[in-house]
Amino acid sequence: MTATPLGGVITGSLAQHRDGRGTLGIAEFAEVLPFQPVRLFWITDVPQDTARGGHAHKLCSQFMICAIGHIRIDACDGFSERSFELHAGDYLHVPPAIYADVVFAVPRSTLLVLCDRPYEAADYVEDRAALPLAGE
Amino acid sequence: MTATPLGGVITGSLAQHRDGRGTLGIAEFAEVLPFQPVRLFWITDVPQDTARGGHAHKLCSQFMICAIGHIRIDACDGFSERSFELHAGDYLHVPPAIYADVVFAVPRSTLLVLCDRPYEAADYVEDRAALPLAGE
Repeated sequence: MTATPLGGVITGSLAQHRDGRGTLGIAEFAEVLPFQPVRLFWITDVPQDTARGGHAHKLCSQFMICAIGHIRIDACDGFSERSFELHAGDYLHVPPAIYADVVFAVPRSTLLVLCDRPYEAADYVEDRAALPLAGE
Repeated sequence: MTATPLGGVITGSLAQHRDGRGTLGIAEFAEVLPFQPVRLFWITDVPQDTARGGHAHKLCSQFMICAIGHIRIDACDGFSERSFELHAGDYLHVPPAIYADVVFAVPRSTLLVLCDRPYEAADYVEDRAALPLAGE
């Protein structure tokens, strides 16, 4: 049996301190990230129950953190599909060759994403029919 | 005239894409960060007009991003004081030896902070009277 991209997904929860002064969440890269990030992006203000994403990456790995709210990630690698529910503080490491739809399930949900590569337009695969992507 | 810590502060705005599908903000580390980050933390759910922070760091540099809302950073290095107003997408690079109070000026304001050092309890200086901190 050959390893598939979805088999490389890792999920878990980051440390969070919550009290009357608010919420502080922490990602110590050496402890939780499988790579050295070179880019951070965040997505917020998304209308409830609508999806972002809708693409796979050929080479880029993404470490997705639900900082606020509730986010569902529907992942598919052309071999199988799986959905992941992230609440505040939960993360999902998404290796390359996984097509992901990111659904913002409650208002104000906010996603943080750490990436191991800079933005590269040629790294995006928006055609779901192209799955599974050829291994590198 | 000797350089002071506050003289090393850098502020600016990150790229943001806003449309009916929401807001996407981006920090490409090689383009905007003066260091290689090893830690990310975020602060949210802070009651309006209350402050977080209230300390300086001996060695840690922090790249602060206002991802949502409006955040004011009151900074002091023992030589002078300065306040910075960050709206969504704005950043403030805070070198060591700067005492910072972070005021969350509107509801749901959210701060992202990239750091060049892991969490080290001994790096925090909470006594404002200890300013200015001795240079390393």
